Amino acid sequence: MTIIENKALPESFIKTLPGSAYSDPEMFAREQELIFEKMWFCAARSADVGKPGAFKTVQVGRESILITRSRSGEARAFFNICRHRGAQLCTEESGEVKRSFQCPYHAWTYDLDGKLVAAPNLTKMPDVDRVEYGLRKVHVREWLGYVWVCLAEEAPTFEDSVMGDVRTRLGDIESIDHYGVENLELGRRITYDVKANWKLIIENFMECYHCATIHPELTEVLPEFADGFAAQYFVGHGAEFGEDIKGFTVDGSEGFDRIPGVTEDQDRRYFAVTIRPQVFLNLVPDHVILHRMYPLAPDHTIVECDWLYLPDVVASGKDVSHSVELFHRVNQQDFDACERCQLATDSRVYADGGVLVPSEHHIGAFHEWVLNSLQGTD
Amino acid sequence: MTIIENKALPESFIKTLPGSAYSDPEMFAREQELIFEKMWFCAARSADVGKPGAFKTVQVGRESILITRSRSGEARAFFNICRHRGAQLCTEESGEVKRSFQCPYHAWTYDLDGKLVAAPNLTKMPDVDRVEYGLRKVHVREWLGYVWVCLAEEAPTFEDSVMGDVRTRLGDIESIDHYGVENLELGRRITYDVKANWKLIIENFMECYHCATIHPELTEVLPEFADGFAAQYFVGHGAEFGEDIKGFTVDGSEGFDRIPGVTEDQDRRYFAVTIRPQVFLNLVPDHVILHRMYPLAPDHTIVECDWLYLPDVVASGKDVSHSVELFHRVNQQDFDACERCQLATDSRVYADGGVLVPSEHHIGAFHEWVLNSLQGTD
Amino acid sequence: MTIIENKALPESFIKTLPGSAYSDPEMFAREQELIFEKMWFCAARSADVGKPGAFKTVQVGRESILITRSRSGEARAFFNICRHRGAQLCTEESGEVKRSFQCPYHAWTYDLDGKLVAAPNLTKMPDVDRVEYGLRKVHVREWLGYVWVCLAEEAPTFEDSVMGDVRTRLGDIESIDHYGVENLELGRRITYDVKANWKLIIENFMECYHCATIHPELTEVLPEFADGFAAQYFVGHGAEFGEDIKGFTVDGSEGFDRIPGVTEDQDRRYFAVTIRPQVFLNLVPDHVILHRMYPLAPDHTIVECDWLYLPDVVASGKDVSHSVELFHRVNQQDFDACERCQLATDSRVYADGGVLVPSEHHIGAFHEWVLNSLQGTD
Repeated sequence: MTIIENKALPESFIKTLPGSAYSDPEMFAREQELIFEKMWFCAARSADVGKPGAFKTVQVGRESILITRSRSGEARAFFNICRHRGAQLCTEESGEVKRSFQCPYHAWTYDLDGKLVAAPNLTKMPDVDRVEYGLRKVHVREWLGYVWVCLAEEAPTFEDSVMGDVRTRLGDIESIDHYGVENLELGRRITYDVKANWKLIIENFMECYHCATIHPELTEVLPEFADGFAAQYFVGHGAEFGEDIKGFTVDGSEGFDRIPGVTEDQDRRYFAVTIRPQVFLNLVPDHVILHRMYPLAPDHTIVECDWLYLPDVVASGKDVSHSVELFHRVNQQDFDACERCQLATDSRVYADGGVLVPSEHHIGAFHEWVLNSLQGTD
Repeated sequence: MTIIENKALPESFIKTLPGSAYSDPEMFAREQELIFEKMWFCAARSADVGKPGAFKTVQVGRESILITRSRSGEARAFFNICRHRGAQLCTEESGEVKRSFQCPYHAWTYDLDGKLVAAPNLTKMPDVDRVEYGLRKVHVREWLGYVWVCLAEEAPTFEDSVMGDVRTRLGDIESIDHYGVENLELGRRITYDVKANWKLIIENFMECYHCATIHPELTEVLPEFADGFAAQYFVGHGAEFGEDIKGFTVDGSEGFDRIPGVTEDQDRRYFAVTIRPQVFLNLVPDHVILHRMYPLAPDHTIVECDWLYLPDVVASGKDVSHSVELFHRVNQQDFDACERCQLATDSRVYADGGVLVPSEHHIGAFHEWVLNSLQGTD
Repeated sequence: MTIIENKALPESFIKTLPGSAYSDPEMFAREQELIFEKMWFCAARSADVGKPGAFKTVQVGRESILITRSRSGEARAFFNICRHRGAQLCTEESGEVKRSFQCPYHAWTYDLDGKLVAAPNLTKMPDVDRVEYGLRKVHVREWLGYVWVCLAEEAPTFEDSVMGDVRTRLGDIESIDHYGVENLELGRRITYDVKANWKLIIENFMECYHCATIHPELTEVLPEFADGFAAQYFVGHGAEFGEDIKGFTVDGSEGFDRIPGVTEDQDRRYFAVTIRPQVFLNLVPDHVILHRMYPLAPDHTIVECDWLYLPDVVASGKDVSHSVELFHRVNQQDFDACERCQLATDSRVYADGGVLVPSEHHIGAFHEWVLNSLQGTD
């Protein structure tokens, strides 16, 4: 009886990553260092730090990052650590300060640009530079109504990396501009606690071979998904709504008015985009769904999912539950599957990984990108 | 003041294993690999997978194993992992399928012999061998009414290993045949969550030097146990019931009818057998008690204890509580002692281990067997 | 944008230890071995083992230690481990035995001096030396009404180490004798569960730069603390009570009668002493506050704080809440700050540590002492 076989793969298959890639703490630490703390990370909604002094604290990789807005209206991000003895400046998830952050331990005080502006006896320490001993800064960029941060010393070009992923998927960057995502407002947020590696969640989002099995509601709305080919398989392709489907809702009932900029070509279609390493973008005519992942451990990822609508939909208190319910079910179905896969990653019969069928082969490019990123050669 | 002494041992003593053998995660990982995933492991009651398609999932070493019965009536065991992307096939502890196991992620489907019989688009992948990409098989054997599995590529002979331990202890294999264990039925199962290393539990079961101190009920029934010599000390010996004792019950009250095959020599006696690495067998005239250990961590072992009776005892709903209560108390007393020993295993004064008195010296052979197993030279 | 800078420090600053010193499990294991298991450790109140056979079990470093009193009235301490198979002798936190400790596993029995006095069949093992196989002894000393133990093979001189720290701080040893601490009685004990490294707690206790920010009640009682200089900064100095302050209480209200031996120089003053590695001593005219730390993990320390009063204060049931409340608040304020600092110890921007301002520079000597202790060259 042979338990581990090493035969050549049939041509229909290519390999996944080995099991340990999904469970090894050292692999995960390298991913934190070389992926999540090196790339642009979608950290907060711009509206959450809407005015000067409003702040949010966010876990980015292994670091606590303090996001706020300066008096001049620009988003700012800092390591959430006092330069004196290292106390965490803000322990609350969000809040608002007037004009400065004061460390609650020894009262070192920083303005909204991070400069050290006061401390007990500071005047007796004239050799201390107020900027050099200001808060450690992090790169910031706002796009699509979100604050993106990058913890690398030198950030990759936002245009090449974040926008590049959108361009590669949709064919051009104008396609997303039509949705005016930065003008939409939050209709609903649901947070999922997933006991699975972040890469399993990405792999799942990238393929639709599972759609017929686990997503009855979604394949009802997007009949072509039943064939197993994901929207992400073809550049620029959006999956078309079924004939009797009126809107992207759990029961196919009518949605809301089309977002003004959305074109005829984009109408009645669903586009999905993966922005590496932690964002999924889902575009339909009347709303946008944006997922953000926060990887906490090899087998533990928090996923925050935002449903975004036109301002008047949110302001008028219209019932968004039919559209929310559709992707909320899809999320639950997907994350259950990912958790089920996580269980095998330590098995000796999965040491060499599993296989990808033809309609999943494009996931191999994601695996290569991960491995390259960890070698710092991407 | 000398805290660590290195004097020669008095002849009355031999050493136990060093403390780290009971607490070191690396030692435990090697035991999982070289003992529990290499030897025959008693995994399920045959009756639990009584008919084709009935299944149980069991943790064997570090692996989840799926046990079922084929249409031809033979027990089957597989790694509980889909060959496609590694999803766990069955997450329930037990259940029943009609004729196949279908992975709930992408619907790959396997028959009861493990063969891949269906998958979406499988017909378009003619190069995929249905047997080669069937479920990974595990060796199976049924004996004493239990399904035993072996995860090794080449299994040791069942006759030499499992039956060999019984033969060594009882003197011959016929002695156990008399009890017809495979025909008995489950009267009661109690599961114990023990915060101790599995070897401490075996060592405890192998000696009776502790009986007078912690087992008042048992020494009442088996007076010779008060002398500190375990039933396992002499080949073929069974401890005799006390004069006034009518049955193997908590108060010495009468038990049930003698199992038909049990001989006069075996009557009114208690025989104990350790089947390495995880089974204890306790034989008395009217019932059999079988313990199975599931080691989960260096300091954590689950013990499942089955009380087995003649079918008519179970069918008629007779009160088994007097016999169950006796060994349930013994179990609790023993496991409390093992947990108390676990606490010392990290101490620097136990780095070199403890000592075995003469009536415990036979435990040294168990220690040698463990060490040999980890060197792969047994 | 530069995130990690390596510029020379301004002269106002010296460095703290690197962040990993507060979070690395290996560093912590070395501290357990080379500091807490090598130095004198304040383990129990003498009154808790007031008469022969009274016992307490205490965690010292990584070891469970059994403290008791012999028939001749001397304090005794042993590793809490049976010499036979390693069972923990006493699992209760405290209790009383008549004349011996009997292991509940196999009944090995030790007298109050640790000698093996009985065991089943021991008479048949004449080669077993009763003292050599007695309990493993630990050095013991009583001072200030506490039992101090040392797990080292050769203990450092109590006079040089424990008393030496008191002498260095107060200028002489007589100063503490005046308080007659060994005659005081326990008025209140509060135990704090602190999620911070033990060294952060010591550093916090050693400086008062934080006092103005987090200790409003304490700076009200001791106005000079508002300047940021700790009582521990100058040898022999005690911080003076404010003019309107009547006693060392949360609201400055009157305390109790002055302890008879306390001198005029010591009256209306607060003295603080750090006795490395785990005791803080706080001396005021009418009571003494003694903190003991039990480090359990790099980021977890239990602190037991005793408020000690003259016997008649305790006997008469006088209300001690005004004096207890003052330092209870100080404790909570301090431990909150320490927990806030612990959060940063893993950050890459704290890899190189933080900075100490001039009024904190004396903490540098503590850091040097820690590093020297770990090299065994102190």
